[in-house]
Amino acid sequence: MRQQLGWGLIGGGKGSQIGGAHRIAARLDDLFQLRAGALDVDAGKARSFGAEIGIAEDRAYGSWQDMLAGEPSRGDRIDLVTVATPNATHFEISRAFLEAGFHVLCEKPMTMTVEEALALQQIARDCGRLLAVNFGYSGYPMVRQAKAMVENGDLGRVRLVMAEFAHGFHADAADADNPRLRWRYDPAEAGVSSVLADAGIHALHMIGFVTGQTIDRLSAEFHSHVEGRELEDDALLSLAYSGGARARLWTSAIAVGQMHGLNIRIFGEKGGLAWRQEQPNQLAWTPLNGRSELLERGGNGLYPPAADGSRIAVGHPEGLLVAFANLYRDIHTAINAGTIAPDALAASLVPSADDGVEMVRAVHAAACSAAGDGAWIDI
Amino acid sequence: MRQQLGWGLIGGGKGSQIGGAHRIAARLDDLFQLRAGALDVDAGKARSFGAEIGIAEDRAYGSWQDMLAGEPSRGDRIDLVTVATPNATHFEISRAFLEAGFHVLCEKPMTMTVEEALALQQIARDCGRLLAVNFGYSGYPMVRQAKAMVENGDLGRVRLVMAEFAHGFHADAADADNPRLRWRYDPAEAGVSSVLADAGIHALHMIGFVTGQTIDRLSAEFHSHVEGRELEDDALLSLAYSGGARARLWTSAIAVGQMHGLNIRIFGEKGGLAWRQEQPNQLAWTPLNGRSELLERGGNGLYPPAADGSRIAVGHPEGLLVAFANLYRDIHTAINAGTIAPDALAASLVPSADDGVEMVRAVHAAACSAAGDGAWIDI
Amino acid sequence: MRQQLGWGLIGGGKGSQIGGAHRIAARLDDLFQLRAGALDVDAGKARSFGAEIGIAEDRAYGSWQDMLAGEPSRGDRIDLVTVATPNATHFEISRAFLEAGFHVLCEKPMTMTVEEALALQQIARDCGRLLAVNFGYSGYPMVRQAKAMVENGDLGRVRLVMAEFAHGFHADAADADNPRLRWRYDPAEAGVSSVLADAGIHALHMIGFVTGQTIDRLSAEFHSHVEGRELEDDALLSLAYSGGARARLWTSAIAVGQMHGLNIRIFGEKGGLAWRQEQPNQLAWTPLNGRSELLERGGNGLYPPAADGSRIAVGHPEGLLVAFANLYRDIHTAINAGTIAPDALAASLVPSADDGVEMVRAVHAAACSAAGDGAWIDI
Amino acid sequence: MRQQLGWGLIGGGKGSQIGGAHRIAARLDDLFQLRAGALDVDAGKARSFGAEIGIAEDRAYGSWQDMLAGEPSRGDRIDLVTVATPNATHFEISRAFLEAGFHVLCEKPMTMTVEEALALQQIARDCGRLLAVNFGYSGYPMVRQAKAMVENGDLGRVRLVMAEFAHGFHADAADADNPRLRWRYDPAEAGVSSVLADAGIHALHMIGFVTGQTIDRLSAEFHSHVEGRELEDDALLSLAYSGGARARLWTSAIAVGQMHGLNIRIFGEKGGLAWRQEQPNQLAWTPLNGRSELLERGGNGLYPPAADGSRIAVGHPEGLLVAFANLYRDIHTAINAGTIAPDALAASLVPSADDGVEMVRAVHAAACSAAGDGAWIDI
Repeated sequence: MRQQLGWGLIGGGKGSQIGGAHRIAARLDDLFQLRAGALDVDAGKARSFGAEIGIAEDRAYGSWQDMLAGEPSRGDRIDLVTVATPNATHFEISRAFLEAGFHVLCEKPMTMTVEEALALQQIARDCGRLLAVNFGYSGYPMVRQAKAMVENGDLGRVRLVMAEFAHGFHADAADADNPRLRWRYDPAEAGVSSVLADAGIHALHMIGFVTGQTIDRLSAEFHSHVEGRELEDDALLSLAYSGGARARLWTSAIAVGQMHGLNIRIFGEKGGLAWRQEQPNQLAWTPLNGRSELLERGGNGLYPPAADGSRIAVGHPEGLLVAFANLYRDIHTAINAGTIAPDALAASLVPSADDGVEMVRAVHAAACSAAGDGAWIDI
Repeated sequence: MRQQLGWGLIGGGKGSQIGGAHRIAARLDDLFQLRAGALDVDAGKARSFGAEIGIAEDRAYGSWQDMLAGEPSRGDRIDLVTVATPNATHFEISRAFLEAGFHVLCEKPMTMTVEEALALQQIARDCGRLLAVNFGYSGYPMVRQAKAMVENGDLGRVRLVMAEFAHGFHADAADADNPRLRWRYDPAEAGVSSVLADAGIHALHMIGFVTGQTIDRLSAEFHSHVEGRELEDDALLSLAYSGGARARLWTSAIAVGQMHGLNIRIFGEKGGLAWRQEQPNQLAWTPLNGRSELLERGGNGLYPPAADGSRIAVGHPEGLLVAFANLYRDIHTAINAGTIAPDALAASLVPSADDGVEMVRAVHAAACSAAGDGAWIDI
Repeated sequence: MRQQLGWGLIGGGKGSQIGGAHRIAARLDDLFQLRAGALDVDAGKARSFGAEIGIAEDRAYGSWQDMLAGEPSRGDRIDLVTVATPNATHFEISRAFLEAGFHVLCEKPMTMTVEEALALQQIARDCGRLLAVNFGYSGYPMVRQAKAMVENGDLGRVRLVMAEFAHGFHADAADADNPRLRWRYDPAEAGVSSVLADAGIHALHMIGFVTGQTIDRLSAEFHSHVEGRELEDDALLSLAYSGGARARLWTSAIAVGQMHGLNIRIFGEKGGLAWRQEQPNQLAWTPLNGRSELLERGGNGLYPPAADGSRIAVGHPEGLLVAFANLYRDIHTAINAGTIAPDALAASLVPSADDGVEMVRAVHAAACSAAGDGAWIDI
Repeated sequence: MRQQLGWGLIGGGKGSQIGGAHRIAARLDDLFQLRAGALDVDAGKARSFGAEIGIAEDRAYGSWQDMLAGEPSRGDRIDLVTVATPNATHFEISRAFLEAGFHVLCEKPMTMTVEEALALQQIARDCGRLLAVNFGYSGYPMVRQAKAMVENGDLGRVRLVMAEFAHGFHADAADADNPRLRWRYDPAEAGVSSVLADAGIHALHMIGFVTGQTIDRLSAEFHSHVEGRELEDDALLSLAYSGGARARLWTSAIAVGQMHGLNIRIFGEKGGLAWRQEQPNQLAWTPLNGRSELLERGGNGLYPPAADGSRIAVGHPEGLLVAFANLYRDIHTAINAGTIAPDALAASLVPSADDGVEMVRAVHAAACSAAGDGAWIDI
């Protein structure tokens, strides 16, 4: 029998999509109990929405500071905090809760700067607390199957990864001044990168997740196709990895007709894989000189990390919420097992502070390369 | 703010897929709280698994009879019971809980005989309780979009529906004596039909759900392709509907290469629709003399029943668990609004006792027709 | 080196799609030389169009009767005649040319009545001439791969075939009186069947082609969804085959959104196949308890009948014209080898008079069954 | 009535795939008559294969020099020569035939060096002869539809094109020394580029064909994933176009699981397009803020360049051979109309010497950029 852990959520207020996704995913397997929240920057809204979703009145906090003050001394204090606030606040909030002894799952990007990322990584280490980052697409069973196939040598040495995360929802020039969009392209609010830091980062994480390699060097170009944008709405990266793999990443917000196009193809000496996030239950596998096969989530013959990640049988589609739930389940396991140090976490399927640091580094290096006409930057 | 309702589950014990799906779906939106269960025929297992998933000790009952005895007098008594037990027990258990004043969501098929189905329908009416049947695939947003398009006249008069629900998981003759399969083809345990009552019934329900029409007459043929089976592992139905639509339904358990192949195509005077359960987030729409379009769950321009059924944005796939959650959400709404009489329910999106009766009738009529060389049977 | 044969075409005049397809297909491999034609019922148009496409003036005949008079005595007389005239003339023209010593490729359906079909079959036998019928979709390499896989036992005994040939181009009630369509639903011109005899017949032939079995019995229902039509615009057949296979065939002209939807799925004891005419270069294969594979035309590991049917390498799509060319190539081979008697032809890949007879029988039996409320009819 | 032109083929001998494709394509519409050939470097094979495919004995030449000597003085001399010989001979042969007054269709790449390309372009101009280059994929109707949609402003200004042409047929390290492959990666035989000059060049041409823009600048990286290769088996290009569009091109020979993966996506201000060569009869179109549509070759509402390029009706797939035939048909039209000067040709759908020059320039610039760590090179 698995023990429920107490869980708290910061951010993710009423109408927030990511907040709703976290609440569903964290509770999907009965492993976490939502006990506390600071769900909105508006204290009143934070309290009323907390009550609305069943949080006890005294734990539906009006701010994360109140939550930080109120939780530590409780006997039934929460174990894990999810930080789903605006990016610029990730560092401060995560640090505070780590230092107060809580485990933290932070939304991506982990921080706004590399220095913050490194500091947060060290704080987690010093505090002996788990620090995970929500690269939640890595929770899809068939992504985990891809990773396991690479680890098991089915592809031989990985030569090349082609990754993309493209959508077209910021393509409308007439909509560019919409406040909902504008801040995303304002360096004062969004930092050094827009679409790469927001969407492409997931594909970038997935390259490392599947190959088990880290980024050595990269070159990038950024473009702003819609007039008036300071930050990029389209980017291309070329990357060299620690194990010799090369990769290319395209990410875009102006690709009309792409929905939530996170796709990855992995080419090795002995075979190739292809996966598309919008049809996540299938993974195409072609062994060298062989026939293409379609592997199905829930089907026979999958490796344990894929087989373990299914809730329902083959042919019954699962979606993103279940992928996120896999991440919460693995965090639950890590906390219970005490395998929460960065090294231990890095050996698990949970995206760790190490991943968070690498991704923040990569985004900054890409911005730097793009500003320097595509010069190669060491990570 | 929506009030949580108390919920109990009968059946769906450890390792049960459908039980797990109900537990996830019922709680997905925070609308139901699992307070009581009789999860296994083995009293010990029922109690221990109940405790394992967080049910209070005194409400983790050893049998549904105990649950029936224990719940009614409690102040925090449950509101809704889900009956996910073997088919032959649906009638008795559902009746008992309806008569004790609980609302009931019963797994399909509602009952083993038409007489029981009619009786149960009447009991729900007499007791003023909700009786719904888990034709859960009708909860998919794009199925609801199809229904709404028909209702809004986008297709004109529906002429023809081609439906199928085929899989290949009972195709292996060498596996036919496996107890896990054998009972499904034994009339003593499964009744008059195997694959139609088990799988095809979902596609059959979907025809009526989408068209808004009821079955007038049908003709059927049943086959047992694997030797030794008394009940059908493959069936073909032809149907005439109340509004003039014709339909054909193919269902099979020996269709190797089909996974969970619930597909429906609807052809009207003014356009055609196609939907596939394994890629449920898309609906293909071709207006007469026009270009084919691909409608996306979560996308712009969907009718309210489809738009309301999404949890996450377009391009982020949702799966079966969210479809089931839509059903639970609509049951919650019906209970709160008091629109629980069969007529009221039939006007909602919730599969009602009327649907349950019609489907049981249809299965029996099909078996009768198949035994009579395909003679047409009035429903 | 392969010797060119002389070829003549009757029907298929200016603007005819099928005529153009025959002219391209017959010449694709340099195996036939178009030397004579009677391309139009209008003598003037026949002559001028013949000249336009390079037929010598004296062999661009004004009528098939002139062609029949002119060709036999020539030293360079044609070897093969393709009959692509209205269905009601197939019998008379084919008989005349067979009796004059020519080989004949007749468009489908071979004749309007079973009696004519049998007579023509006998005439070909008596004259020692080849009589083939253009079930040209059997020329697709991946259809031939499916046939070879069945023959080689890869599927084990075939249990069930699901076939369909549906389109939506006759769905518009406002267009029903268009002369281009109206004759197709007029028994005086089209005979006993419309969409089955025109489109469904190809799918019906393919069932027999792939399984190697002949029809024992069938049951059918016909519908006319567009008001005023005497003949069916939609049909469903259930069939029992000589080797124990069952099959179902759906054909329709009112299925808006279906283009030229000839699809076939074959389910055997040891695996299942699926093929779609609109994407003809792929064949999906799922071995029992195994993973789904995608076989590619031109790829490795295909059986000879499939491998031989490709003109260009894997990944370069081939379409219908190449399928038709395969049929012409095989007719060329049969003529050169002298394997032209019905039995010899039936053992080849060329659709023979036997196929022609069986299909005409089946269409008539289906019309009879449909008129008799779906009664089973022996073939 | 359209007049046949005389046609000759150099290269494309027995067993050659591209030769067979040209012979089928050139004759598909009865517009060209194969009258002369020098089909093999081996004089004996050239003569015997010429005879085998129906070329008169005296015009089945033993060498292109013999053909050059024999044809000009004939009354029935050929009009067009197709040059399908090894790349290094394109320049010399094309020059000789242009100077002798023949029109020339040259295989890609047009020449080995930029200097040769410019010289050949000038020679065609000086001689007043047509010089076309076989970027035959531009003959696909739906590619022409894409071009027409851009021209007609349906997409608004084009922002970004993502193109790729990837296969995996050179991925096997164990096969790298196979003479069939080895020469392709040997600079002495293949020049400055392997997979880009061989495969990627088609995708590169298509970007310009569809957008109507020419390359301003590019940056490239080349990789040799299989040990021992001097030339690239994988490349990534980033490009800036004359009209402001950006593009990226990935080409690869080590992408196991990709067959003949020529894909293109075009993103404009007002919509996006996607086309895949392996399913060439469909074009996906998403208008900004609208629903995705699937345009079908042969369907209603296509622009003339697409509508004119079909031989058979919607739903009957056409493949690469018909695309090539469109190119031959357009060359026929250009010759008959006298619109053969480079400028005139550039305004047509026929890939011209201008295209040939631009592509050779681009390949050399890419090789140069790749050698210079991705530096941007002006074209």
